Amino acid sequence: MGTMKINPEHEFDGQFSINTSSSRLLDPEEFRRQGHMMVDFLADYFQNIEKYPVRSQVEPGYLKKLLPDSAPYKPEPIAKILEDVERDIFPGLTHWQSPNFFAYFPCTSSTAGILGEMLSAGLNVVGFSLIASPAATELESIVMDWLGKMISLPKTYLFSGGHGGGGVIQGTTCEAMLCTIVAAREQMLEKVGREKVDKLVVYASDQTHFSFEKAVKISGIKLENFRVIPTTKDTEFALDPKSLSRTIEQDIKSGFIPLFMCATIGTTSTTVVDPLKLLCEITKDYGIWVHVDAAYAGGACICPEFQHFLDGIENANSFSFNAHKWLFSNLDCCCLWVKDPSALTNALSTRPECLRNKATDTKQVVDYKDWQLSLSRRFRALKLWLVLRSYGIDNLRNFIRSHVKMAKHFEQLVSMDERFEIVAPRNFSMVCFRVSPLALGNKQVNKFNMELLESINSCGNIHMTHALVGGVYMIRFAIAAPLTEYKHIDMAWEVICNHANAMLDVN
Amino acid sequence: MGTMKINPEHEFDGQFSINTSSSRLLDPEEFRRQGHMMVDFLADYFQNIEKYPVRSQVEPGYLKKLLPDSAPYKPEPIAKILEDVERDIFPGLTHWQSPNFFAYFPCTSSTAGILGEMLSAGLNVVGFSLIASPAATELESIVMDWLGKMISLPKTYLFSGGHGGGGVIQGTTCEAMLCTIVAAREQMLEKVGREKVDKLVVYASDQTHFSFEKAVKISGIKLENFRVIPTTKDTEFALDPKSLSRTIEQDIKSGFIPLFMCATIGTTSTTVVDPLKLLCEITKDYGIWVHVDAAYAGGACICPEFQHFLDGIENANSFSFNAHKWLFSNLDCCCLWVKDPSALTNALSTRPECLRNKATDTKQVVDYKDWQLSLSRRFRALKLWLVLRSYGIDNLRNFIRSHVKMAKHFEQLVSMDERFEIVAPRNFSMVCFRVSPLALGNKQVNKFNMELLESINSCGNIHMTHALVGGVYMIRFAIAAPLTEYKHIDMAWEVICNHANAMLDVN
Repeated sequence: MGTMKINPEHEFDGQFSINTSSSRLLDPEEFRRQGHMMVDFLADYFQNIEKYPVRSQVEPGYLKKLLPDSAPYKPEPIAKILEDVERDIFPGLTHWQSPNFFAYFPCTSSTAGILGEMLSAGLNVVGFSLIASPAATELESIVMDWLGKMISLPKTYLFSGGHGGGGVIQGTTCEAMLCTIVAAREQMLEKVGREKVDKLVVYASDQTHFSFEKAVKISGIKLENFRVIPTTKDTEFALDPKSLSRTIEQDIKSGFIPLFMCATIGTTSTTVVDPLKLLCEITKDYGIWVHVDAAYAGGACICPEFQHFLDGIENANSFSFNAHKWLFSNLDCCCLWVKDPSALTNALSTRPECLRNKATDTKQVVDYKDWQLSLSRRFRALKLWLVLRSYGIDNLRNFIRSHVKMAKHFEQLVSMDERFEIVAPRNFSMVCFRVSPLALGNKQVNKFNMELLESINSCGNIHMTHALVGGVYMIRFAIAAPLTEYKHIDMAWEVICNHANAMLDVN
Repeated sequence: MGTMKINPEHEFDGQFSINTSSSRLLDPEEFRRQGHMMVDFLADYFQNIEKYPVRSQVEPGYLKKLLPDSAPYKPEPIAKILEDVERDIFPGLTHWQSPNFFAYFPCTSSTAGILGEMLSAGLNVVGFSLIASPAATELESIVMDWLGKMISLPKTYLFSGGHGGGGVIQGTTCEAMLCTIVAAREQMLEKVGREKVDKLVVYASDQTHFSFEKAVKISGIKLENFRVIPTTKDTEFALDPKSLSRTIEQDIKSGFIPLFMCATIGTTSTTVVDPLKLLCEITKDYGIWVHVDAAYAGGACICPEFQHFLDGIENANSFSFNAHKWLFSNLDCCCLWVKDPSALTNALSTRPECLRNKATDTKQVVDYKDWQLSLSRRFRALKLWLVLRSYGIDNLRNFIRSHVKMAKHFEQLVSMDERFEIVAPRNFSMVCFRVSPLALGNKQVNKFNMELLESINSCGNIHMTHALVGGVYMIRFAIAAPLTEYKHIDMAWEVICNHANAMLDVN
């Protein structure tokens, strides 16, 4: 192949000069100056966070009216940009780190979590394969084993367990679900033949996170083959093993192939725990891949007193939880362990020539690109490492326990007021409650509680969200924000009572 | 539903105290103290980055020997952790931000990019739906329009264009590809019937990024229906419209349904540009969804002189590029525009009760969870906003042009040495070269160049990677790291010549 000519039509002949501070991409001293400004900006934000309405009170479309139509031609100083953040962006934020944020499931930050993100962004290495930055891969494998041991995962899930298992940090539970579904799908189709893809069936309960259905849909499995098993009040809305068993039996009779089940430890609506041990006893007879989703509640399992919820995990295939939810590791950090990583890598690996290298060729190293959907990946292990080391197991357990204690305290406050009722068992740090029908006379219960919640959220003092389970509209009070203390719980209860009083016409 | 009792078996009766600095998750003053330390740590890293071998020189498994088997029980101070980062982690890093990093495609950082990550991590809000943090969604829509205008995307791709289009920030190109494939798949199956899924065919060239094949596989489309169109030296390894046309015609005759084509602006191996205009003229007759992947080269299109490469994009359906590659926006930041977002949202939307809210119910707002695979998402728009404002269009173009000029300079150095040859046209800031067969006598050309590359990478002064195209093993020299200057190009060339000299036995 000969030397080729440069195509002259792409030449640029203009002049340019690079001589101002904003004209260098990464000047160390300029970074130092601006970095310190940003740290102070954030520290002040945390100091003042309670001054802002927790749930943003802006109207949709507010920001378009404040910002220009196009990017600036000339550079703008960081000081001006930070002023704009405070003036234009803050009103549009719902402050997830506010001590008065009790909505959804929390997405928890911490000093160590933010520092981990800073360090990862600063180094900005891409650890898709071992060779691309060995520390990124190796630290991830090490901290995933650390964390696995902290929650007493069976050895079969750990690199150091000697059974071939291991862990990987994904972005979100949705990614973890999709990866494991595809792994299970490919493994099964290898066995039964690819033409049987239409026969594959997956199982979940009506309380399983909706991301699971989305992952199933993306994977191309027919939605008619997605079995949503109804739950009832009798089992406190946990997945009933007998219902599962009946459904599987029926499917087999009809010529379907049971492929995958998602069990949940701590459902989104009410933090119900599916009876993992009993469920896995059923699924193992059929060779069904069981994924255990503990997105929120998994963090609690670093405390021995919560680990019994994972009984039966030894018979599952994969397990994930979000360290960014209740383990203070900042979005995003979904920890996924699999017993058989080769199922993942068989389904997801790519061996392009341009990434070929000696380490990969040995087949003895972990190339995390083959454990996930994407090629590129951030160095998230640094963040988890910093969180685990900065606080230590002892303090991390204390944080979890303090959240649970605050939830119990809130639960007591609700229980002592006969106008309210607790509407689902509290397993972790979330309390589901409502104004009781008894207090409402002939008012519509769901409608009243819906209006109560909107009334509270609109005031901006606290933020909660809702669930609708078995026809019951309930208000969810989820505690884990990093700045929440007892006084915030008491204040929240006062806000709730004040709004309820006003709506109940009590003085 | 009555008040339920608290299950006493989960009670924790132990004592704990929260009184040391590491015993609070997010103390503002403690964050300030540690944050400043981290900024200085990173500034020093950038100052000293050239002292480290660019490509890590450790052996696989090195880190396990240095770190403990389990997480510490008690907290460790940040100063100690940063010492460990320097001592234990740095040797295992391949320094992607080093000015001597010319491998893969760059993943570029900048002061503004890092600050954007810091700000996003500090606020740590989750903008899955508008209501969850309106500024996160609205800023993203605004900056995606800004960036779309900067690269002169047709109005049909912009929110402000009045045709219903719009943009979203995804993590990676793989995610963007998977989302658009699933969108196209669902749209087509709605039309032709779901039982036709086995007939869907997708098209790419043998130079298309391997992530595309992975995305196709994940989506459940049969790999037998994945048409990889061979490219040849005659077209400089671009996708030949005639070959595409013939393949499509053949598929239609055989009863297949053409679904999707991926065209590339700047391929991974040699930065070839597929002839988008001609390709789209063919695909539009068949209603094929065209995704344009400009992962690396898209950044260059902020310069008017590169925008002609996008000619024809008006007839495509979606376009993505990675602002974390050549637009200085730190991993991860993949910008995806679609003409018809309803195709995405029809395929990917979920409407769970627990996320129900007034804004979503109006169907007038963007809920980005329905534009992507996952529910949760980081506030990446802040980062892009900071990059665009901190540098301005003018400087950003200058950065791109300086990289291209440096690539031309390197190209000249190679061209002037008759022992070397340029083996692919340089379109952007990457040069593909090798030691020429003429200089090697009866030595095996590919083997020699492979050994030359390994010899260079093993010394740690500079880092490059390779490609194998049309049987030719070539060394890729990709310029875009944020600290690279002319002197680094000259030094790199000297290193290359020294190694080549030694291997050619020249003194």
